[in-house]
Parts: sequence; structure tokens; C-alpha cells
Amino acid sequence: MSLLVVGSVAYDTIKTPHGEAAEALGGAAVYFSLAARLFTPVRLVGVVGEDFRKADLDLLSQSGVDSSGLEHVRGGRTFRWTGEYSQDMNRRETLSVELNVFADFKPKVPAAFRDSRFVFLANASPVTQLSVLEQMNRPDFVMADTMDLWIQTAHRDLLALLKRIDGLLVNDSEAILLTDRHNVIEAGKAILDMGPSRVVIKKGEHGSILFDGGQIIPLPAYPIGSVKDPTGAGDSFAGALMGYLTTSSGKPRGKAEVETRALKQAIGYGTVVASLTCEDFGVRRIAAASEAEARERFERYKELISL
Amino acid sequence: MSLLVVGSVAYDTIKTPHGEAAEALGGAAVYFSLAARLFTPVRLVGVVGEDFRKADLDLLSQSGVDSSGLEHVRGGRTFRWTGEYSQDMNRRETLSVELNVFADFKPKVPAAFRDSRFVFLANASPVTQLSVLEQMNRPDFVMADTMDLWIQTAHRDLLALLKRIDGLLVNDSEAILLTDRHNVIEAGKAILDMGPSRVVIKKGEHGSILFDGGQIIPLPAYPIGSVKDPTGAGDSFAGALMGYLTTSSGKPRGKAEVETRALKQAIGYGTVVASLTCEDFGVRRIAAASEAEARERFERYKELISL
Repeated sequence: MSLLVVGSVAYDTIKTPHGEAAEALGGAAVYFSLAARLFTPVRLVGVVGEDFRKADLDLLSQSGVDSSGLEHVRGGRTFRWTGEYSQDMNRRETLSVELNVFADFKPKVPAAFRDSRFVFLANASPVTQLSVLEQMNRPDFVMADTMDLWIQTAHRDLLALLKRIDGLLVNDSEAILLTDRHNVIEAGKAILDMGPSRVVIKKGEHGSILFDGGQIIPLPAYPIGSVKDPTGAGDSFAGALMGYLTTSSGKPRGKAEVETRALKQAIGYGTVVASLTCEDFGVRRIAAASEAEARERFERYKELISL
Repeated sequence: MSLLVVGSVAYDTIKTPHGEAAEALGGAAVYFSLAARLFTPVRLVGVVGEDFRKADLDLLSQSGVDSSGLEHVRGGRTFRWTGEYSQDMNRRETLSVELNVFADFKPKVPAAFRDSRFVFLANASPVTQLSVLEQMNRPDFVMADTMDLWIQTAHRDLLALLKRIDGLLVNDSEAILLTDRHNVIEAGKAILDMGPSRVVIKKGEHGSILFDGGQIIPLPAYPIGSVKDPTGAGDSFAGALMGYLTTSSGKPRGKAEVETRALKQAIGYGTVVASLTCEDFGVRRIAAASEAEARERFERYKELISL
């Protein structure tokens, strides 16, 4: 079994009430990879500039992330994001975005990656996401993320993408925007009618809701008091979810095995790994985490919510 | 075992995007009682005016609620509340409040109620809540609700109350206001330091969090798409929680038996009974519900969130 992620690789400058980090390794595909690698080897497709640090490449490869699909643009500059969080961490302001080499990102999936059975299309334009699917050799399970920008400016392409994927992972506000419904329960059901057979709606500190056929399954966030930096929590959630689905304890899964119970457990792993990410700045905590640590927190979470 | 609730009895006029109800039976103590009676007999202490309808008294007594502690004020008028919900049901505007007889509410606990082992002090001024405790004969487990008004205008009395109760049940925004913390996890821990050994923070559609000693246990809301009227959901939650704690399947519980597992299950019952309340206007749904229906939805909920 094999897992491919396609998405942004970035340098983030982050300010929260607990401190700051400048030019820290980030981006959706990086958080995703560092979470997923706790469970399975990960193949990463993305783009960086000439300024991408050797140390960051080393971190990825030492973590079990195959970055041979990472395009290096000569004379280019890596994607930069600068943001600041409010005192209660519930709002963040983007202070600056420099897309740089990510602006013209045309993902090229290496031949060796085309047989990946599980695929995650991190946030990018639906056209870019569709171009990845064109290059793949019939994967078993494809999940995608999106954002308000694409819902508003590339609605038709997004609808086309929805017909081609197995699962959509979105924030509550994005689900409501996409479907024009008044609450997340109605929104999740409406997205199922647009194509994917599974929808996961992320609600940040309030957990998530899985829509799997007729089943609607809410799960709470893992309670941590000490959120230092929530950047990348959603992408880590996706990474652990897909990583766990791809291979559970070494036992390969096929399409038919992505069942409700496996999805619930995968979301449980996504939940606890996202909470790890929040405990330190940038990728620091998730890069240092071990599979045993994730499993231990999962067992604690499972026991906590067991009635 | 016996359960006492002291709080408001009202006539509500409610408008939601799904319809309206005028002069409908409501009030915290009524929702609480109609939820708790699914599990145990309930003793109600409150106050109404001469206009209180015979049919509503009959509804309470037929439901297993002992309303002999309901004071009828000659020439008085029952508490009135009028409110309107936003399109997404997440905000409600109070259009008018007439406290009427509730303004001078001095709860008198009938002699026959003073031995109640479980006591719920629904929202009222902390001085009023404390006056109830003065009349009780050493109950086993006392839980109280409060609101922003008392946190802001009767802070000292509220702190005195907190030292006398076993559990506090509050909304997330109230918990943050009371403790001046930035998130609900920190707020819940801070309330534990103020006196009660248990805190339950209600988050509406996002579920609740139990703080029980060192344990922090989040539980999601029961997912329903068809919220018709959320009025009384929080009070129904409290009623089912306390009703289940008071007696579980006829087996009496004592102080020592209010353990984490029982509290979690009680919150599970609170969660599903609150969802029943939201399915129709006013007390209509909760008054028609049966214990079997609550237990069936609880089992479904338990299975949904089991990993």
C-alpha cells in the first residue's frame, strides 16, 4: 500500500500569544506528510524554490517521506505565508502571502508514484487537483481538501472534482459556503449528493463530523489546554487520517476495506495527531512525535469518549 | 433516591425559521423536570401567577413531576419570555422579558422535599440558589446553573455558591466570562479551583466537556439535521443528566457512586434528550418522549462515538 500527497510546501512566519516562529518549514503537504509518516511511508509531490533548505529536505527524508516528487525551481523562491493568531486562538489574520513558485504549480507525478493506492489532494485549485488524478493509475481512495477561494472562484471545476473523488475534507464554514445550507449536518449531507461517498467536516477545537452514506458520526477534539500554535492542525489531521487508512499495523487495506469503523478510527488518529501538532510551533512537535506516542494518545482518547 | 429542581416556570413565545409558538409552557425548571422524569420522579419548586393553566399543571403531574412545591401567587402573572432565532439557529435575540412573579421568587422548599438526595439549582440569582441550600437536609449531590448576568452583577455571591455545590453546569461563554480565561479547557480547570468537584461546560451544537478531577472528557452533540426549536435544550440536558444520575435502572446511587463513568453516561443521556427537545417546539417533543426512546437514542449515540 502506498500514500501520495500533492500540495503546498512553504516557509511560515507565525505569531501566536505564546510566541513567534520565523521562516519555519510548513505548507499543507509538509504537515500532512509528517503526520502520515507515523503510520505509513509517504510520497510527496510539491514545488520549492532555490532557497529551500537542505536541513528541511533531510528532515523529510529522515522521517520516511519520499520527496523525489518535490520540484526545485531554479532561481525560484519558496511559498511564504505570514499569519497572526488572536488571543483566544480562534481567529487568525493572514498578514502576507507570497505564492512565489506555488503560483505556477503544475504537479508532475513521478512515474514511480503513479501506482499509489491512496491519494490526498491538499488545497490547490480544482484544476490543479484534477490534473493529478489524470496522471494516476486508478487509485483506491482519493480524498481532497479545498478552500473558500475555490468555492467562490472555481465552482464548476470544483463540482467536476467532487465527482472524481471518494472523500472531501473541509472546514465547517467551507461546507456551508459550498452548499448554501444553514448548518453543518445539512451541508455534509448535501456534499454527499455532489459526488464523494464520504465527507469529513473539520470544526477545529470542536472536533469533526464524518458523513459516511447514511451515517453521521460526530467526534470531539482531543482536549489540550496548552495550544501553542494551531497552524497545520487540519493538515496533520488529514495526514494521520489517510496514513492510518493506508496501512493499519502493517495490514494492507483495499478499497472495499475503507469501512465506517476504519474511517472512525482514522479520524480518531487524525484528532490526536492534530492535538500533538498544536502543542508546539510549526512542525516541531509533529516531526518529533513517534507512532507509539500517537497510538498511546489514541487509546487515551478512545477510553475518554467511551460511554 | 429523590431529585429536586428549583427554577423558573414560564410562558414562552418563540419564533424560529421553522415556525412559531405563542405562550407555550417553558422555563428552566419545566424543561429540566420533563427530561429528568424519564428516569426518576421529580420534585419541582417554582412560582407561577394566577394565569397558569390547569392543563399545564396536569401535564406535569401526569408526567411524574410533583408540583406541590409550585407557589401560586394570587393576582400574579407568570414569567413571560419572547425570543427569536437566527436563520442558522446559532443566535437568539430576546425580544422581551417580563419576570412578573419570578422577580420576587423566594423559593420555599416544602418539608416533604427537604430530604431530596439530588438537587439542581436552575438559573436564578446566587442568593436565591443559596437560600434553597439553607433549607435542605444535607443532599448528596448539588448541581447549579448560572448566567452572565449573575457573573457580572453578583460575583461574590456566586463565588460563595460555588463553594457549596458539587457541580457547576455552564455555557462555554459563561465559563470564560467567569474565569477570564481564553479557552474552555482552561476555564473549566479554573472553575474546579473555585469549589465544585465537577464542571460541565455546554457548547450547544458542539457538545459538552466534563471536568472531573484531573479528567477532561469531551463529548459531541447528537447529530440532528432538523432542529426546529433549540429552546430548553440546555435545561433538558441538565434534567436528563441529573435524572439519570439520581437513579439508574431503579438502582439507587449514593454520593460515593457519582463516579466518572456514571457522569459520562449521564452526560450521554443529557446529550440525546437535548436533541429530542430540539426536534419540536417548546416542550412538545420532550413531553411526548418515553424512557425507552431516550435509551434507544443513547445506545445509538454510544455506538456512533465508539472507536
